[in-house]
Parts: sequence; structure tokens; C-alpha cells
Amino acid sequence: VWSVLGKISEQELHNYRKFSSVLEGHPTFRFAYTEAATGALGVGLSIGVGEALAARLGKRSYYTYVLLGDGEIAEGCVWEAIQIAAHYQLHNLVAIVDCNGLGQSDEVLFDHDITRYKKIFESFGWHAVIVDGHNIEELLHTFDSMHTSIEQPKIILAKTVKGYGLDFAQGKLGFHGKVFQGEIYKKAIDALRNRCGNDAQYTENDVWKPKLPKAAEQYGTQNRKNILPSKEIITLLCEQKPISTRQAFGQALAALGKVNNAVVVLDADVKNSTYTEMFEQQFPDRFFQCFIAEQNMVSMGVGFHRRGYIPFIATFAAFFSRAHDQIRMAALGQSALRLVGSHAGVAIGEDGPSQMGLEDIALMRCLPKSVLLYPCDVVSTYKLVEAMANYHEGISYLRTTRLPMESGVLYAENEQFHIGGCKVVYQTENAMAVIIAAGITVFEALKAKDILQQQSPLLSVAIIDCYSIKPIDTATIVAVAQKSGSNIVTVEDHYAEGGLGEAVRSALAHTNIKIFSLAVPDLPRSGEKSELLAWAGIDADAIANLVKKIADLNNRKIIRGW
Amino acid sequence: VWSVLGKISEQELHNYRKFSSVLEGHPTFRFAYTEAATGALGVGLSIGVGEALAARLGKRSYYTYVLLGDGEIAEGCVWEAIQIAAHYQLHNLVAIVDCNGLGQSDEVLFDHDITRYKKIFESFGWHAVIVDGHNIEELLHTFDSMHTSIEQPKIILAKTVKGYGLDFAQGKLGFHGKVFQGEIYKKAIDALRNRCGNDAQYTENDVWKPKLPKAAEQYGTQNRKNILPSKEIITLLCEQKPISTRQAFGQALAALGKVNNAVVVLDADVKNSTYTEMFEQQFPDRFFQCFIAEQNMVSMGVGFHRRGYIPFIATFAAFFSRAHDQIRMAALGQSALRLVGSHAGVAIGEDGPSQMGLEDIALMRCLPKSVLLYPCDVVSTYKLVEAMANYHEGISYLRTTRLPMESGVLYAENEQFHIGGCKVVYQTENAMAVIIAAGITVFEALKAKDILQQQSPLLSVAIIDCYSIKPIDTATIVAVAQKSGSNIVTVEDHYAEGGLGEAVRSALAHTNIKIFSLAVPDLPRSGEKSELLAWAGIDADAIANLVKKIADLNNRKIIRGW
Repeated sequence: VWSVLGKISEQELHNYRKFSSVLEGHPTFRFAYTEAATGALGVGLSIGVGEALAARLGKRSYYTYVLLGDGEIAEGCVWEAIQIAAHYQLHNLVAIVDCNGLGQSDEVLFDHDITRYKKIFESFGWHAVIVDGHNIEELLHTFDSMHTSIEQPKIILAKTVKGYGLDFAQGKLGFHGKVFQGEIYKKAIDALRNRCGNDAQYTENDVWKPKLPKAAEQYGTQNRKNILPSKEIITLLCEQKPISTRQAFGQALAALGKVNNAVVVLDADVKNSTYTEMFEQQFPDRFFQCFIAEQNMVSMGVGFHRRGYIPFIATFAAFFSRAHDQIRMAALGQSALRLVGSHAGVAIGEDGPSQMGLEDIALMRCLPKSVLLYPCDVVSTYKLVEAMANYHEGISYLRTTRLPMESGVLYAENEQFHIGGCKVVYQTENAMAVIIAAGITVFEALKAKDILQQQSPLLSVAIIDCYSIKPIDTATIVAVAQKSGSNIVTVEDHYAEGGLGEAVRSALAHTNIKIFSLAVPDLPRSGEKSELLAWAGIDADAIANLVKKIADLNNRKIIRGW
Repeated sequence: VWSVLGKISEQELHNYRKFSSVLEGHPTFRFAYTEAATGALGVGLSIGVGEALAARLGKRSYYTYVLLGDGEIAEGCVWEAIQIAAHYQLHNLVAIVDCNGLGQSDEVLFDHDITRYKKIFESFGWHAVIVDGHNIEELLHTFDSMHTSIEQPKIILAKTVKGYGLDFAQGKLGFHGKVFQGEIYKKAIDALRNRCGNDAQYTENDVWKPKLPKAAEQYGTQNRKNILPSKEIITLLCEQKPISTRQAFGQALAALGKVNNAVVVLDADVKNSTYTEMFEQQFPDRFFQCFIAEQNMVSMGVGFHRRGYIPFIATFAAFFSRAHDQIRMAALGQSALRLVGSHAGVAIGEDGPSQMGLEDIALMRCLPKSVLLYPCDVVSTYKLVEAMANYHEGISYLRTTRLPMESGVLYAENEQFHIGGCKVVYQTENAMAVIIAAGITVFEALKAKDILQQQSPLLSVAIIDCYSIKPIDTATIVAVAQKSGSNIVTVEDHYAEGGLGEAVRSALAHTNIKIFSLAVPDLPRSGEKSELLAWAGIDADAIANLVKKIADLNNRKIIRGW
């Protein structure tokens, strides 16, 4: 179709899947008219739900069309989208299922039983129509009939035969992804030409040009104001009642909502845990309850982003694991999703291991162009939420903590935080090591410093708050480490694999700095925060003990005095 | 209930969620009678599908019961299980949905509209019954009625009120996960006592004791035979037609199936790509087509494992990302799933980035007790498949490659491979570096060695095939590196974060060995294998160039001669 429209040359069609081509094995944004990068199955309908909700929010009249395969709809995320679309009564969403009855290797789940699909969709609350997918006139008529005011999402179940019109292939397994060559290729092309003709008429006007919604036009980053008024933060500082970074995130998000109408917030039935409810209370129109369906939520965010919005998407850090493929595909499609995972690490305590984010750093680090932020107090949370809103190159992720910070607010309101930065929290002459911490472990590091100072003046350490884990501030870390005995101790509330310790190690690969790491060593259990930090060996005592061992390694004489 | 049965003391009930207790925030196997570790929502029904299919396979008459929440069933994986259970007509699966209408933070998707759920389940092909969830007699009667020969999975939709009988809480939001204290606690306990009474009678016989299926009793690892008869491998070696590791996996799996009846195989509509079809052809009863629904497939595997089977679960490496939360929960429940991900890395070529496994190493490394294997030829694939079958402590993962190995078979049939091992593929006096490769990059490393040898006798390198990435063979790597100029070059067809390079770096953290890493640096594209390996900088030329740079760093004199 794009070739007929003059957007792709015939030569380019023959370059399909070649290194130099904009046409890849599955659609990506190398081709300018791609609407969404797909290829991992089932993500399309959720993206469509996001686009349809964006249309409603922006009071725009366009319809969103999503093409699915009948093999693909076995994917659970499709059913999340089906439920949510029905819940939100999205009249402006039209799904088309190509029901050819064949998957890659077998017949599909319900074979060619198209009336069963109709019953299923209708029971969910969709308006469903069955058509002959090979009858162009019937298809056109059906598409026209979709523009009704029925407050239901619509689905066209198109009965088709795979390889229709090619007698040697039609309705048969074994041709999925197969390339026709030579005589067979010629036969196939001729059969298609005979059936479809060459007389289609298209003009440039037939190419839909999406416009950014009003919100984003008016409230882009140029008009952005600081989200952290000094009065507000001073009030917080004066309250003397520590809050958690998840609460600070909720406050910052609401503040951001005030200065930027393009911000929308999605949450998976945990708004009272992630504190996105603070945003909802002030901006109910821009808050979307996504229920317990994290996959659909993430891909909905892709749809909102595509229509010019700035989506913040929140759930427990652990539960983003459920949507990792959707996040991977969003990264592939260069969607600037802002993901916020609460309840990081063993520090959540009693809820137990299934609720602890212990691999989220690893999962977010390995995405192209991703940014990974992990604040430890109110001020840094505010500033990093602001930084995320302004990061448009890919996925950004904020890791928040369940329990309030013991030591209250760490930073003054005028401290600056930026993507790729870190903070030297404590520095001293003749430090023998630098402790690199983030989030909750910053406070453990500060306590460890006090423990060590009481034991010997020789056991002095520097402390870095590595609030930006990706990108990481290599230059500052190297500079501080070289002034601190060229010893680093990393400490993180996360498994060792793919976490802060490995990030530091990779950044410093070509230096002579020694790196020692503390991380959660095994499957945790329920318990109190302090018990679990001690069990994992990531509390102040564990840090202090490791520093003493390093001192012992470096100079056995120092140790003898203890 | 377990307390009434005498399996938990009243004191232990009061220890709920404490560090010393077997009762965690969500069920884990610390409590001996736990059937499945849950807490991430929606995995239960899939585990039940696996158990029900295991019953059918083992010709056992038990029924499997799964309790779900109506908030939970928004999760897509539940709908994958609903479709598959209907497809397999699992009469021995009974689901119960506690329909109380309330989620954690809001009303559930379809509120309290229980007849809508009934219609939906019936349209999928389930036998559905609505009951009053507070009427014990009606519940008992309904449970009895489930033991019918109707060839349908069954669902009991139990209409309930959250906090029923506690006038101050019932049917209200805001009590999710809240602990009652003092007077309110007393009032709540009294209300429950008055309603339920204390006269329940249970005996030890009421505790169901699962038995291992016949298959596992007869064909445990003790009776295991070598799956790789020498004749078979010699035939392979003589064929002189290289095959890929995914094909070798398919052959090995079929060979394993012959000697172990407990092996079952699950595949998500890509059996002709992963080559599990080789197993299916010989053992159709033990092969389960799971359609394009990876999440349900993984949790089904947990059910099979729980009933004594050895599940091998295969799809593209990239698509295991879709099921990462289910894999995380399987690891938490100490299920010995054998996962096999094909189409690793940019080496797949034309299909493009959405189909390339580029983060699977990171995703599998960060699971407690996981094992990560990555063979490069036929012999190592066979031996590692055998090793996986015998690994029962947790998740094991095998990474396979799409294209045949250029250099054919690398290892002789009598070579030994084991979890935690590596192979020194090439070693020489005065090597200036050791290249650590795995899978496809082993062959690039061999070519790099030849390129370097042609350029200068001083540029000699050792090569390690790091086929076991977790656990990793630290001792051998250190020993070879120390004999090779204390320089390591890692090269992997995977993103840098969380991959082979970081695994090596973490293992060697406390040595003076320098580690240089090559990995896929950015989002890839479609193209030919050789183009993509060159683009990513992980081919023989890239390795050779890096080694020359290291030589330059170490001794500028060597270089001057070039």
C-alpha cells in the first residue's frame, strides 16, 4: 500500500529485511509511517487503547484501528486490553482480527470457530461483526459502519484463508515466513495481481497525519516551571516527620501535573501504595486506573506517548517484571515512558519476597537508551521526577522505597540533581574507601561511617549517593575513589546480578580501582526491615565490617590495634 | 484451617509475617503445606492447568482447585489459562473466583456484575456456576457437583462481600491489608467466631498428600542413561553438514525423552523454530502445544514440576521476556523449570530486533539459584541438555542459536560438560590475552585468533568457551588469564548490561586481571548475520582489533612494527 502511495519504491520492497532498508522483519520507526513498533505479539491493541483514550482526553474525533491475528489473541495482554477498552467504553477503538485459523506451527486455539470469538467479545461488552475478509466491498461497508455513537469498542472478525488465492499454499500449514522463489514467486504475484488489480487510486490526502494534542502544544518543556517551590519544600523540611520516597514521588507528580497538562498517570490498582492517588485527586481526568493488568498499562503508555502525552506509569517495582516484554518493545519503539516502581528491595519488610523489587535494576538497565534513577530523599525525588519529565529519548525508570527515610531529608532544596549525576554525600582527607550507595543504603552508609569513625580515625570513608545508576557518573566516582585509597564498596538493596555493583564495575573496567560489593545474596523472606537488611548483609554493620576487611587487606598493621 | 488441623499452633498464627515464621506475607514453601508460591497475581490458574494436565497424563483421578480474586482476573495470564483449559477440555480443573467487587484501591473492572463473568466464562467453553460465597452449605453442595464427567473446566463464581459480617468494614474500600488492633480486633474475631463456630471437625485424613506420578517414580535420575550414544554422535560428526544448536537441542530433547518418561515439553506455537517438534513426533502425549501465550506456559510448567515431571519449556529467547514475572515466581517457588530460548542475539539476522534475544542473559542471571547455559555446538548442547534434566534446585536456562555453526562440530563426543564449567578451546605459551566467548562468538574468537597470528606471533591469544555463564568457572578463568598476560576480552551476542562481560567481571572482582568487553551496543536492525555481527562490533575483526589495542596498551614497542 505504501508503495502504491509512492512512499516506498519498488526497489525498496525488494530490500525488505536487508541491512540498508527501512523495512525490517517487523515494523520499526526506521520506516517513517510506522505507527507502532511491534513484533512481540499482542501489544498492538493496548497501544490502541492508549491512543483512543488520548483522543478522548484531547477531545479529538479520530478513530484508532488495530489489526490482530487470531494466533496472536492467545496472548493474555490482548485480554487485558479487551477488558479495559470495554470498561472505558471506547467507541473510537476498532479492532480487526484476521481469522485465518493458522498459527506458525499449528491451528490456532479455537480453530476457525469465528462465532465463538463473536460470543466471547460480546460477553466482554464489545460490538462484534463477522465479515468475509476477502470481500473488499463488505470490508469497506463494515469499516464505514464502525463510525457509530455506540458506546462500545468495536471488533471486526474477518474470516480469511491464509495464502488465499494461491492454490498450492492456501489454508495449509508450513508456509509461515516462507519466501516464494522462482516460478512459484511469479505465480503468487500474478495471482495477487489478478485478484486485486492495479487500478487503486490514492492521493497524499489518504495518508493520515497525526497532530500533537493541544495539551502538548501548550505545555511542552519550554513553558515548564520548576515543580518544587521553595515554600513547599521548606514546609516539608520543617514538618520533622520523615516521608518515604514513594510519598515524595506522589507529591512531586501532583506538582508536575500543575505545570504540565501533557502529563498523564497510569496505575495498576495500587495508587494508594505508589501514591499516584495524589495526582488523581487533583487531576482525575488525566489519571487512568488500569486495574491489575500491568502489561496493558505499559503499552497503553506507548499509545499516550505516540499522541504527544508524557505518561508516568506506576506499580510495585516487582510487578514491572510482568510487563518486561512490553517495556522492551516500548524501548524498541523509542517511547519515552516514565516508569515508577515502588516497594524496592528487602526493605519493604513483611509483605515477603513476591512483593520485593529485587531484579528491577537489572531489567531496566538492559534496555537501549534507558535511564535509571533511584532517589533517597524528598528533594532528590522531586528533582529526578522533573528530570524524567524532560527525558524524551527512551524509557526512564524511578525506583522508590516503601518506608520513610530514617534520617529525614538529606539534601537542601537548592541541590541540583540530573540524569547521569551523583552526589558526594561525605568526603574526608585520607579516606581509605568510598562507599557507593543508592536509595535506602545511603542511610546505612552514613551509619557505617559513624560506626567506623568511633572505632578508629584510620577507618575514614567517603560516601557517594549514586542516584543515577544509568547513565552513571564515572568521572566523579573515579575522582573520589582515587582520593579514597582506590577502594570502592557498593551496597544495594537488589540482587548482585545486573545491579548497582555491576554497573559500577562496568563503568570502571579500565581503572585500577578495587570494587567490593554488597547485595541481596539469596531469596529473602518476610520480616522487619532491619532484620532483612542484616540478613542480606547490606546494613550499616555489614558495610562497616567489609570496610574493616579492606583495611586489613591494605595494611594489617592498622587492624592489630583493634 | 491449618491451625484447626493442628498443623500450625495458635502462637505461629500470631507470628504471621515475622522473620522467624513459616507464614510469610504471601504463601511460600517455608510452610510445608503450601501448594504453590504466589503473590504476584494471576499465576495460580496456570499452575492449576499444569497440574490438571499432569493428572490426565499420569491417569490419576484427582481434581485441581484454584482460588482467584475478582481483582486478580484482570491479569492477562489468567485469560491465557482460561483459553488453554477450554482447549484441553480439563474436566478436572475447578476455579473459584471470590467476587467481592473490590480491589486494593478501587472497585474491580466489572464491579459486582457476576452474571457478566458467567457469560464470559461460558463463551470460552467453561461450565460456570454462581453461588452465595457466604453460604457454606451451598458452597459444599456446589463443590460436590463439580465431580461430573462434563468435558469442560469448571468455575464457581462466589459472590461475596469483603469483610463480611464486620459491620464497620464490610463492602468498604480502605481496609485492604489493614491490621485490626485493640477493640476493633476483638470485635472482628468475635464476629467471625459467632458466624463460623468452633465445632469444625477435621482429621489428618483431610490433608491431601500428593503422590509423585508413576512416570517420575519409574524414571527418576537414578535410572537415567546417557542420552548421547556414541554411534549417534559419530553419525552427526560424519554428516559434514553443520546444524544449529537449536536443532541439536531438538535432537537431544528427543533422545532424553527416550530414557526418561518424566520429561514433558511445552512450546508456544514455535515448535518448528525451537525444534521441540522433534520431541513431539516421538512423544506426542508428553508434548503440550501452549499456543502464543508464554506466561501461562511457564506457570503450567510449575504445575507439571509440582506433580513430579521434568518440564522443558521452549520459545524464542526474546519471548521469555513476556513471562519474566512467572519465571521470577517459579524461582521463588523453587520450581526446577528447564527453559530453552532460541534465536539468541543479533545473529538471527533478518527478522529484526523484536525477535532477537538480547537481554535474556540479564533476565535469567538475576534469579536466585538459576543456572545459565549457552552451548556452541552439537556435543555441548547434548551434554548440557542432560545436565539441565539433572538440575533440580531451581530454574535452568539454555540459550540456543538460530543459524548453523560455520565451523561445524567443535568438540569430540567424549568431552565432558557440566554446570559451572568452561572449556579452554585454545591455549598457547605467552598468550597476551584470553578471549572469553560463548555460543556464536566462540567461532568469531577462533577466527580472530587466526587473524592475529597472521599479523604477528606476539599477538597470540587463548580462548575460553564459557558455556556455563551461571555459575561461572572462576578458577579456570583466573588460571588461564594469569597465564595470558592478565588480560581478558569478553565477547557476547547480548547487550552489555547484565551479560557475560559483567558476569566475568563480578567473578574476578578481587583480582588484578584487566577485563575488556565487547557486546551489542545499541538497538540492532534487520540484516545478514555477518553484517550485524560487524555492526555490533562482536565479530572476529572487532575482537582482533581490541586485542591489538590491548597489546598497544601493554607494550607500544610490539605495535610499532605493524
